[in-house]
Amino acid sequence: MNIAFIGLGNMGGRMAQNLLKAGLKVYGYDLSEIAIQHFAEAGGVVCDSPQDAAKQADVVITMLPAAKHVKEVYLGENGVLEVLKAGSLCIDSSTIDPQTIKDIAAVAHSKNIKICDAPVSGGTIGAQAGTLTFMVGADEQTFNEVKPVLSHMGKNIVHCGDVGAGQIAKICNNLILGISMAAVAEGMALGVKLGIDPQALAGVINTSSGRCWSSDVCNPWPHINENAPASRGYQDGFATQLMLKDLGLAVEAAGQVKQPVLLGGMVQQLYQQMCMRGNAHLDFSSIIQQYLPQEA
Amino acid sequence: MNIAFIGLGNMGGRMAQNLLKAGLKVYGYDLSEIAIQHFAEAGGVVCDSPQDAAKQADVVITMLPAAKHVKEVYLGENGVLEVLKAGSLCIDSSTIDPQTIKDIAAVAHSKNIKICDAPVSGGTIGAQAGTLTFMVGADEQTFNEVKPVLSHMGKNIVHCGDVGAGQIAKICNNLILGISMAAVAEGMALGVKLGIDPQALAGVINTSSGRCWSSDVCNPWPHINENAPASRGYQDGFATQLMLKDLGLAVEAAGQVKQPVLLGGMVQQLYQQMCMRGNAHLDFSSIIQQYLPQEA
Amino acid sequence: MNIAFIGLGNMGGRMAQNLLKAGLKVYGYDLSEIAIQHFAEAGGVVCDSPQDAAKQADVVITMLPAAKHVKEVYLGENGVLEVLKAGSLCIDSSTIDPQTIKDIAAVAHSKNIKICDAPVSGGTIGAQAGTLTFMVGADEQTFNEVKPVLSHMGKNIVHCGDVGAGQIAKICNNLILGISMAAVAEGMALGVKLGIDPQALAGVINTSSGRCWSSDVCNPWPHINENAPASRGYQDGFATQLMLKDLGLAVEAAGQVKQPVLLGGMVQQLYQQMCMRGNAHLDFSSIIQQYLPQEA
Amino acid sequence: MNIAFIGLGNMGGRMAQNLLKAGLKVYGYDLSEIAIQHFAEAGGVVCDSPQDAAKQADVVITMLPAAKHVKEVYLGENGVLEVLKAGSLCIDSSTIDPQTIKDIAAVAHSKNIKICDAPVSGGTIGAQAGTLTFMVGADEQTFNEVKPVLSHMGKNIVHCGDVGAGQIAKICNNLILGISMAAVAEGMALGVKLGIDPQALAGVINTSSGRCWSSDVCNPWPHINENAPASRGYQDGFATQLMLKDLGLAVEAAGQVKQPVLLGGMVQQLYQQMCMRGNAHLDFSSIIQQYLPQEA
Repeated sequence: MNIAFIGLGNMGGRMAQNLLKAGLKVYGYDLSEIAIQHFAEAGGVVCDSPQDAAKQADVVITMLPAAKHVKEVYLGENGVLEVLKAGSLCIDSSTIDPQTIKDIAAVAHSKNIKICDAPVSGGTIGAQAGTLTFMVGADEQTFNEVKPVLSHMGKNIVHCGDVGAGQIAKICNNLILGISMAAVAEGMALGVKLGIDPQALAGVINTSSGRCWSSDVCNPWPHINENAPASRGYQDGFATQLMLKDLGLAVEAAGQVKQPVLLGGMVQQLYQQMCMRGNAHLDFSSIIQQYLPQEA
Repeated sequence: MNIAFIGLGNMGGRMAQNLLKAGLKVYGYDLSEIAIQHFAEAGGVVCDSPQDAAKQADVVITMLPAAKHVKEVYLGENGVLEVLKAGSLCIDSSTIDPQTIKDIAAVAHSKNIKICDAPVSGGTIGAQAGTLTFMVGADEQTFNEVKPVLSHMGKNIVHCGDVGAGQIAKICNNLILGISMAAVAEGMALGVKLGIDPQALAGVINTSSGRCWSSDVCNPWPHINENAPASRGYQDGFATQLMLKDLGLAVEAAGQVKQPVLLGGMVQQLYQQMCMRGNAHLDFSSIIQQYLPQEA
Repeated sequence: MNIAFIGLGNMGGRMAQNLLKAGLKVYGYDLSEIAIQHFAEAGGVVCDSPQDAAKQADVVITMLPAAKHVKEVYLGENGVLEVLKAGSLCIDSSTIDPQTIKDIAAVAHSKNIKICDAPVSGGTIGAQAGTLTFMVGADEQTFNEVKPVLSHMGKNIVHCGDVGAGQIAKICNNLILGISMAAVAEGMALGVKLGIDPQALAGVINTSSGRCWSSDVCNPWPHINENAPASRGYQDGFATQLMLKDLGLAVEAAGQVKQPVLLGGMVQQLYQQMCMRGNAHLDFSSIIQQYLPQEA
Repeated sequence: MNIAFIGLGNMGGRMAQNLLKAGLKVYGYDLSEIAIQHFAEAGGVVCDSPQDAAKQADVVITMLPAAKHVKEVYLGENGVLEVLKAGSLCIDSSTIDPQTIKDIAAVAHSKNIKICDAPVSGGTIGAQAGTLTFMVGADEQTFNEVKPVLSHMGKNIVHCGDVGAGQIAKICNNLILGISMAAVAEGMALGVKLGIDPQALAGVINTSSGRCWSSDVCNPWPHINENAPASRGYQDGFATQLMLKDLGLAVEAAGQVKQPVLLGGMVQQLYQQMCMRGNAHLDFSSIIQQYLPQEA
């Protein structure tokens, strides 16, 4: 099976390497010279354009920054849908709005090309280790076909529903995540200010009804979880600007269906305030600085 | 060991019964005739006043609605601290602000009476089953003394720190809980409106970074968790007005130490809006009605 | 002077009629049959396309629902910039994001066509009476040329800065308006619930530091201002869905420059909740229903 | 007419001096030595206690920091209601919750003592100049009696309703004020970031529907209003911590009647965040720092 991999950045590059390790032939494309170089060193075949890669592939995987790049790669003047054979398989692992992938799918289906959205969670660590979770939006048959491919890069391959459902699941999850992280930051900072020991407080929360991923795996207070970004100066985590991007997708998608996201609309602005103050690259758990006298 | 139990309502009544089942002698007091009657039927000794109960006890347990009642029972004109012997033990399991119990403790200590705050989580079900979590604020020695008493009524007895730390832990936990419940409601409602199946969405969230008690134990969308209030019309849960009370305690305590609670300040008002519209007695997961076209 | 008027809806139709009353020749285009008919009855020359109208004009005025329509009319395949003579003048009175009009202006300027953004305030009443306020973004010379044209339709012609500045002024004003209306609603509802007479309360506010347009001209409490929508069942005002649209523009523009809009992000969602519940067409002062036990 | 004036601080001291200038005999009390000294130098008669002052007076005026002080002075062990003659008149100009003054009034009325709440707006400048606005809660007859007294200290004496209505008006006005100031800050900062000149933007807002006291008298952007605190480094204004206190009163009063204050609950926390970061003494228009990259 030949694979075209478009977008070899921090995430895509690591994912492609796991495909190469699995012995698959991978034709890759990226705008960045360094990304291309790492890919070539790992044994990938460097291509001059998305179309060039797609021409030699049965499966196309895309991992791109935003909807406009995804649209360009699939539907643009030199888009891959122009050159793929009927029966080919496309997997978009970018995090974008649900409507864009539905629009692309309509075109793909008219050419008998199978397509799914499969955004990920797990970050660069999961991408490297091949332990990503994929949230897949596809019909049953397509899901069965993409599952073995994705299994080389992740360990949880979840079928969320039809095309678009993967993106919906991703943005709803991250909406909850962005809010609950701020909630834990608020609760931890309040408790410490009131005089309780942060370890004792986290202990109570994590065995009680306040328990959440943001409290028991990635607590924003330093040294509650030694492996969490909070314990290494909020470095090397899920960047605040990426959380801001995902909350933007949630608020935008909500607006399209006239659905209120009362807390999402507010926390989006709190993360935006963090970015305005130069903290865009810190892990999003650095939102706890909203609750401390001195900003980092 | 003789115990005086002041406040035999929905929570206190069930807790006292577990003490009676354990073979302890319990002297009880409550304003409500019905509460008294249930207590007497279970084998308790009915008293005419808190002082009357306390006079015959080594340990006093209080489970009262608000700080003013707790202050009255301990420090009021006919308060129990007036009649307790030096060396007695007081346990306040009410949920109140941390400062009040600290103030009472100062008086108790001046009389060589030991005291702790020990608010609970687990609701009436936990009270009945004797599986409550107690969050205890006390010095080490007092904690060791109260632990066996509380073990008759709960299964997790957590030492949170000195007097007041139990209340701090409780209100911080419930602050996070109140926000994360609203977050899950917001995310579930958005996903469903965007077209994903609620079961599939909950499945993703609960195995991903949005996971929290409000999503995997008490999901506000009906029939995600069959035992959750959402699956029985939001009946028989943790009432919205009680969540509102706890958020009020958090916001008030935050104000006393000039600590911002950005999300807490907002969700408090969302729960208050629910109460204004006649939903005070529904489980607080009914906050999902904020996100649905028709209110219940 | 010949004028092409594209977009003859509730606002544009009334504006075009004032140009006709002033004796100008107006070539009009709209998709709606009824809009066209009213325009023809008022003496306008009906055209088959924007280009058809523009070919006969020295000045083009556009009044369209959203950025995509504006882009289509100016830059689309049959866009008016294709047929306008060098030295022509374009006025876009739609409310859209600032970036779109800047992008269009770049193309127009390359063809030596003058262009400005000139969004309005004053609603359909102001459009009919010719008393609109125009917020104009243009260089000095262009502003001097558009001023006499706009004077037939409005009484305040404000020069806000270069191209785009009119839109910026409009969305910032409406951001403040959307928030302050909710603030007045909140304050009036609280006061009345606490027992003060609404007329007395409004009297104090309007002579004190809470005074604003939303309190002294368009108070959301009924019968404070007899001419306000609140005094006629929130009918015939500035629709909630239009306020929602403008807040969306503000939040989107803020996101593009990473500027937090903490209150804007939240009130956007409150208006969205109103729309979800079927109140999209009511005047935006109906936001007071957020604060009343029974929704309308 | 003899007046007892209790509370001779920044506000009360200046108010008392205006009474003295009007030729009235004033018996004063304060805990602060300096306050007492200024009062004595202006011709006031210094007393040893509130009761001592009240014994010699027909009218008692109180200007105190918080409800607990007001309660103490009127109802405490040595409270003034103990020594006032039937028919005396009490005026409380403190800003406190409406319920406290109603409770005090019930006791006063039982002794045939007339009482009103009369909180002020206008700050220390208005207090000095004798141009304060008084918001009076009293029955008609009492209002007529207090009006001439208050006229020595203010120029607008507004009858808001029965006892408590003055406080209600004050906190509702300041609730709206606190929100609209943040709204103007948000709008001004957004506009400037998007590239519009702040003077031009303020010009549009102040002649349009965003107009409010916070935009046209006390604009938070420097040098829009030369007399506003923003034009002198946010010094000598209405301190952020006082706005925070008033928002606290509004949120607390709202909670007592189960009335949601959605925006109030949120902006309270934004001002609290300002105070946490050491800006408690700056004018509350310094809330604009929430929207700027560098905090002051």
